[in-house]
Amino acid sequence: MPKLTHFNTAGEAHMVDVGGKPSTTRTAVAEGYIAMLPETLRLIMAGGHKKGDVLGIARIAGIMGAKRTADLIPLCHPIPITHVDLALEPQPEASRIRCQTTVQTVGQTGVEMEALTATQVALLTIYDMCKAVDRGMSIESVRLLEKIGGKSGHWQRDAGEARSSTR
Amino acid sequence: MPKLTHFNTAGEAHMVDVGGKPSTTRTAVAEGYIAMLPETLRLIMAGGHKKGDVLGIARIAGIMGAKRTADLIPLCHPIPITHVDLALEPQPEASRIRCQTTVQTVGQTGVEMEALTATQVALLTIYDMCKAVDRGMSIESVRLLEKIGGKSGHWQRDAGEARSSTR
Amino acid sequence: MPKLTHFNTAGEAHMVDVGGKPSTTRTAVAEGYIAMLPETLRLIMAGGHKKGDVLGIARIAGIMGAKRTADLIPLCHPIPITHVDLALEPQPEASRIRCQTTVQTVGQTGVEMEALTATQVALLTIYDMCKAVDRGMSIESVRLLEKIGGKSGHWQRDAGEARSSTR
Amino acid sequence: MPKLTHFNTAGEAHMVDVGGKPSTTRTAVAEGYIAMLPETLRLIMAGGHKKGDVLGIARIAGIMGAKRTADLIPLCHPIPITHVDLALEPQPEASRIRCQTTVQTVGQTGVEMEALTATQVALLTIYDMCKAVDRGMSIESVRLLEKIGGKSGHWQRDAGEARSSTR
Amino acid sequence: MPKLTHFNTAGEAHMVDVGGKPSTTRTAVAEGYIAMLPETLRLIMAGGHKKGDVLGIARIAGIMGAKRTADLIPLCHPIPITHVDLALEPQPEASRIRCQTTVQTVGQTGVEMEALTATQVALLTIYDMCKAVDRGMSIESVRLLEKIGGKSGHWQRDAGEARSSTR
Amino acid sequence: MPKLTHFNTAGEAHMVDVGGKPSTTRTAVAEGYIAMLPETLRLIMAGGHKKGDVLGIARIAGIMGAKRTADLIPLCHPIPITHVDLALEPQPEASRIRCQTTVQTVGQTGVEMEALTATQVALLTIYDMCKAVDRGMSIESVRLLEKIGGKSGHWQRDAGEARSSTR
Repeated sequence: MPKLTHFNTAGEAHMVDVGGKPSTTRTAVAEGYIAMLPETLRLIMAGGHKKGDVLGIARIAGIMGAKRTADLIPLCHPIPITHVDLALEPQPEASRIRCQTTVQTVGQTGVEMEALTATQVALLTIYDMCKAVDRGMSIESVRLLEKIGGKSGHWQRDAGEARSSTR
Repeated sequence: MPKLTHFNTAGEAHMVDVGGKPSTTRTAVAEGYIAMLPETLRLIMAGGHKKGDVLGIARIAGIMGAKRTADLIPLCHPIPITHVDLALEPQPEASRIRCQTTVQTVGQTGVEMEALTATQVALLTIYDMCKAVDRGMSIESVRLLEKIGGKSGHWQRDAGEARSSTR
Repeated sequence: MPKLTHFNTAGEAHMVDVGGKPSTTRTAVAEGYIAMLPETLRLIMAGGHKKGDVLGIARIAGIMGAKRTADLIPLCHPIPITHVDLALEPQPEASRIRCQTTVQTVGQTGVEMEALTATQVALLTIYDMCKAVDRGMSIESVRLLEKIGGKSGHWQRDAGEARSSTR
Repeated sequence: MPKLTHFNTAGEAHMVDVGGKPSTTRTAVAEGYIAMLPETLRLIMAGGHKKGDVLGIARIAGIMGAKRTADLIPLCHPIPITHVDLALEPQPEASRIRCQTTVQTVGQTGVEMEALTATQVALLTIYDMCKAVDRGMSIESVRLLEKIGGKSGHWQRDAGEARSSTR
Repeated sequence: MPKLTHFNTAGEAHMVDVGGKPSTTRTAVAEGYIAMLPETLRLIMAGGHKKGDVLGIARIAGIMGAKRTADLIPLCHPIPITHVDLALEPQPEASRIRCQTTVQTVGQTGVEMEALTATQVALLTIYDMCKAVDRGMSIESVRLLEKIGGKSGHWQRDAGEARSSTR
Repeated sequence: MPKLTHFNTAGEAHMVDVGGKPSTTRTAVAEGYIAMLPETLRLIMAGGHKKGDVLGIARIAGIMGAKRTADLIPLCHPIPITHVDLALEPQPEASRIRCQTTVQTVGQTGVEMEALTATQVALLTIYDMCKAVDRGMSIESVRLLEKIGGKSGHWQRDAGEARSSTR
């Protein structure tokens, strides 16, 4: 039976020792969606052109959120991030916005949590800015897509699985 | 056409003026889910009994996350929260954990963002603690369930809508 | 001789007691400038139209900075801000950008520090985003323009003084 | 025409990738001034001797501010600073205080923003402590003086330029 | 048998609801000590006069620490503090420094945690600044002395108990 | 006479330059105690079994506190911690709880402050959760036990000294 590494043999939480791991380049890619009313998406897309740039603000909030990950997630190691890129794509056919975040570091542990946290904060920021017109928005399918580097090597979400869970 | 209140007439973002609103009791309830492999859920549920209390740690992280909301969400007002309650319920039949968060304040603006942020941070913490055994976990349906107090009054997610979006 | 109120009679710093002051509406307006090469200003102004929105990002950073004031300034009281508005205006004739920030609260102490801190953080953010093309930019004349509310009443910078110090 | 590196080819902000840059020693020196009434400067200078050490407190605030830079400036990389030195010099002939800050790191990116942020926070702290006796104080000429290390090499502000802008 | 109020009836932690409590003036006084070698205390006391003001820096760190309490203590309510006063007194006869902190607010919950946290951070700062000459320093008897306001009324540490535990 | 390294030759505080020191593995072990009424300790120990896990929450708070050290202690260098382990042991015979914290990094400076800060935050969290039933609890003997790595080499608290100071 696998074990949860964040607990010692007495079952007590600790911050896992990564001191002996080599410092290598690590990348993580995460995605997430916020579903909304069609009118809300139209308002956001109109804003991108000349006023009320919701997506520009959400992008900044997500990038800043990546830097706060270790403050928020109790057992997460503090990591000097070297790169964050966060793309927000309106998908009118599904009446939602997709967020994809890539985070990189050169360090002793991975940046999955940073990529997921940035994604969540960007989506929450969209919710905040549009909640007065659409309280029912829902954040969906926030998850890891790919992970490169470190002892566990390359991991990629199975395409079929990804497709099915966001239908 | 409705307007996004976080932008002034020039389309520039601002923190909306709430200084003239009365200070009243406000409540927000949010929910969210993290879907995982059945084995992962079994590991978490086993831990609750005597070792490796994943849910206890996620609950604390969520409560602390509520207090960081205004640091993370750019245009969110800082609010002195008066109450946070965060319940995490394993749902083995759906192989997922449900999180429901209630936040209250006595203030000039609502606490929806605090309830949603707490929920997200709790679910991200579960991801962090279990990612070594299940990288494919997915956070789903993070959304507002109910909102009480303030000028907009009582809002409740339509039961049918809620059911359909988490099927 | 006037005294510095942030020190007690023994000359030791303390956070001044504002507990007995009434909770009233308070407003502070601050300004500041960042001077730069004409080419740098042209790059920023071009970005506002369709790409690379430096001023939009600086505005968000400034608003978020207002919320961090009490974390940065040792003896500053933590205050629940109710409104922040930050305007950035390119002034090509002087080859600079002007920032004007208005902050409001309903509380027991003023928000001058919040308005000044927001202004500084917005201007620093412009520096950060443009430093690769113009290291010599200079932040000038960050200062209070007006203060309303509280025991000291209405204060306004003398127009002549303001004009002379930014020539 | 030069480009702003904080935006990708679509004009979207990102945290620039520094993962491929070598980790080297980097130094930045910044300066700034706060102009005030002669009486205010006398109060501060009197305090340095035995009571009310405004400059000592501003120095500490500036050093702590350097450590908060990446929290405040959206696209700034988090950096493990190795050295901060902040000197505050009263200049009675100009009725102002000069702040000069040196920051160093061994890392993949420069520390200009840390030096400028520390300078700003130190000057804001002086404003905070003296504002009850002199609301009209003004922060002037916050700018980079020198930068050593990194691909762009040694940069130094032209002496003539520096002199003219602080006259 | 008394109950721990930070847990609900299911034994799950929550942030206690204080929304129904009246907003009143509340005061807390805490103390603590750091014991050290006589030479270390002499160095600190010498610094107070003209160089190396360890106690001045510790005082500022403690005041700032009070403002971070709700960030550090998981179930602590965020409170807008109205007053902090922190006194550091060298006690050469016992080769230690005593810290006494008073915190006040006008709010719905007490400020004991703020007074204790400020005390701890001030004492840790003394440790940090002197550790190169005296690693064996020990922080002792950090505890509440008095609490005024709120439903539980006035509480004062019994003088005999206080004396005996710091002998 | 030894010197306090946190001050330059003019007696002004600075963040000591560690840029020239090699990056090596460093460990620090700290301890601390919180003394309480026997009934309070019984309540805490009962909670560990099935409800109200005070020690589990304190452990998480301590680990998170280690990551906030450089934010709290003015002249402390920010360090990417690689490991934190925090053990809380009830000692019914002395009616207290003992906390022992081990922190590690691979870096240019030691982690004593991180180990001590984590210990303090864990003990303060116990105080917070039990203060409604026992305001008189006292935090005692927070101090360094051992330090490994760095130029100063291996340091260990003398066993006799440790015993005597906690009797």
